[in-house]
Amino acid sequence: MALIVHKYGGTSMGSVERIKNVARRVAKWHKAGHKMVVVPSAMSGETNRLLGLAREITANPDPRELDMIASTGEQVSVGLLAIALHAEGLEAVSYAGWQVPIKTDSAFTKARISDIDGTRVLADLDAGKVVVITGFQGVDPEGHIATLGRGGSDTSAVAIAAAMKADECLIYTDVDGVYTTDPRVVEEARRLDRVTFEEMLEMASLGSKVLQIRSVEFAGKYQVKTRVLSSLTDPMIPLETEMRSGTLITFEEDETMEKAVISGIAFQRDEARIAVMGVPDKPGIAYQILGPVADANIDIDMIIQNTSVDGKTDFTFTVGRGDYARAMEILTNQVKEHVKAEQVRGDPKVSKVSVVGVGMRSHVGIASTMFRTLAEEGINIQMISTSEIKISVLIDEKYTELAVRALHKVFELDRA
Amino acid sequence: MALIVHKYGGTSMGSVERIKNVARRVAKWHKAGHKMVVVPSAMSGETNRLLGLAREITANPDPRELDMIASTGEQVSVGLLAIALHAEGLEAVSYAGWQVPIKTDSAFTKARISDIDGTRVLADLDAGKVVVITGFQGVDPEGHIATLGRGGSDTSAVAIAAAMKADECLIYTDVDGVYTTDPRVVEEARRLDRVTFEEMLEMASLGSKVLQIRSVEFAGKYQVKTRVLSSLTDPMIPLETEMRSGTLITFEEDETMEKAVISGIAFQRDEARIAVMGVPDKPGIAYQILGPVADANIDIDMIIQNTSVDGKTDFTFTVGRGDYARAMEILTNQVKEHVKAEQVRGDPKVSKVSVVGVGMRSHVGIASTMFRTLAEEGINIQMISTSEIKISVLIDEKYTELAVRALHKVFELDRA
Repeated sequence: MALIVHKYGGTSMGSVERIKNVARRVAKWHKAGHKMVVVPSAMSGETNRLLGLAREITANPDPRELDMIASTGEQVSVGLLAIALHAEGLEAVSYAGWQVPIKTDSAFTKARISDIDGTRVLADLDAGKVVVITGFQGVDPEGHIATLGRGGSDTSAVAIAAAMKADECLIYTDVDGVYTTDPRVVEEARRLDRVTFEEMLEMASLGSKVLQIRSVEFAGKYQVKTRVLSSLTDPMIPLETEMRSGTLITFEEDETMEKAVISGIAFQRDEARIAVMGVPDKPGIAYQILGPVADANIDIDMIIQNTSVDGKTDFTFTVGRGDYARAMEILTNQVKEHVKAEQVRGDPKVSKVSVVGVGMRSHVGIASTMFRTLAEEGINIQMISTSEIKISVLIDEKYTELAVRALHKVFELDRA
Repeated sequence: MALIVHKYGGTSMGSVERIKNVARRVAKWHKAGHKMVVVPSAMSGETNRLLGLAREITANPDPRELDMIASTGEQVSVGLLAIALHAEGLEAVSYAGWQVPIKTDSAFTKARISDIDGTRVLADLDAGKVVVITGFQGVDPEGHIATLGRGGSDTSAVAIAAAMKADECLIYTDVDGVYTTDPRVVEEARRLDRVTFEEMLEMASLGSKVLQIRSVEFAGKYQVKTRVLSSLTDPMIPLETEMRSGTLITFEEDETMEKAVISGIAFQRDEARIAVMGVPDKPGIAYQILGPVADANIDIDMIIQNTSVDGKTDFTFTVGRGDYARAMEILTNQVKEHVKAEQVRGDPKVSKVSVVGVGMRSHVGIASTMFRTLAEEGINIQMISTSEIKISVLIDEKYTELAVRALHKVFELDRA
């Protein structure tokens, strides 16, 4: 008998019929003897509907009140799912985040979980109940409701699994696992049976949208065995089949994994590149350039500073395309003169392509294979950034698919 | 500077535009120097939508989970109203019942408020904030959300006003006050400027739907000055005009009130009458007859037991028409033989018409005027029940309008 956490996305909770299917699936697990905690998202479209009402009133609604409003979507979901579980003959009880409690900081609309008290939930599980807990939200030290931001229910589920010392956290979604790359771009993309936590972390940060990155961080920090699998299967498929489906995020590099040098090709379109050129190279210059951009709440991704020539340097970085115009405006009007830059140049149409794999650590030549492959396709590399287990390059956006397909092929990701 | 509680119904909160109007009205009061607490209902239709989802899953959803679901409607309303108040340039904060906290018992879907801790709300008011609190709900001793039942937001508002020792509680609704009778039945019906708490209590219990009866009980118990007024007026009408509009529920019978013998004619259609006839008259017989009916959760209204003749008596009572068939079935199949009744007879088409007024206490002849008037119209009285300030009669339903109009005229309710 294990303690299992299930998480279901908004599509899986999208209608009364689908909620009943979720209940059937959970009942199957419960009847097999497992203690079950379920974390559903809001019904698909509901969070957007609620935020839309708030934005109809004013363009910049107060974040604290937005969380008050948006958190109700999950509260409706847990109540409906509990009722559907009753209809399956199970004892079930639902809790909002504040009732558990799931404690967060006070960064409304993007709060972070600080602590979860599992006492109440454990008592219910010991009494044979299925416990249904709202995703996406918790309660701050002042007793205000705070939400975790988009995709936050993944994080809720993994954090609850960590707090309850669950045996496994199953993230049910509308894809059947983590792929070597996006199957819509590369037909031969293959589902991975396993992926390490570090690879998953890189994939999430590099634009693979399967899991919210903070949920992966939680899984890593607390070593939560996490599986991504499909909610679109027949809810009554045999438990043994379901337990081995999808992609498992692991914490040990086992034998089979060492054989795979590269696990996947991630990519992120909608990037923009900005270069501040001919800047006097002196201490504090990076902060003087990036500080005003960060102050405007613009996320900065890759950063490169060239070796200085004649006491001057070029400073290049990327931002999301949606922030491009605002970042250019800040740099041109506020920063350029202040740092005595010669010019500010930008390209709003770039994308980032990355190869990811723990095998990289013990293999040389990955970078050279990657660069050679792109060169053979005539693709110019604009920026490079690397970590222990990934190499990312910035390229012209129009070559994204070509690059991804070529790299998928050269690293033999289509072969099991 | 006074402390004022406003309550707005679902129609007043029915759209973003209407919510903005509520905010404008509240802002007008706040700018006049008053400390403001606002209790909005869910947007019209929302509670029904939510309960509908639950009933799509199963015919008899768990009440605890229903409350989890239904309470979200008001939570959305308070967030939206707080945002609309911000847009009016006010500081405002919203709270769900559990955040205040508003403490209730655990009778889910029909909970009663046991205590309200006003500390947090008072601190916000002292800081110049408008405080927006969910109606309809609170939190039980175990930390579960419990709702107060249909119309519960009236009760929330009056209870909050009592706990905060508010100077006045204004119930904004889609009628402009309490009338001498239903204006849809009697064209000459007149709005009352004042009505005593006791009269209001009788009116509410006799079918006048302006306020939930428990809100009137609260107003009486804690002597909350409560005013019923229209939310359909221009939100920017002068405060002085608005403060004198609607109907005030008072606790003292002032001079003007003594002059009015009768304040209103209330009526309740959809009643049904049941008679258990020829029952041996012995101790405990009332309980033996009504116990099984009450056990089936059927509310019993008027009850009459005739003087016994030859050791036998007739036992007559009324129930809501929706419960008539079930009550008849219980009496015929379970009770009749057990209590050795000769027969069980029923009439599902009766209505109750009542005259209400504190002036009745010091005036004789009200009952005879009422009975004479009905006799002159050829209306047979089936049952009579009286209290200190009301006389109710049961009549054939088809005479309802005729009776109400005749009584409205004879007691001169059309004259100010």
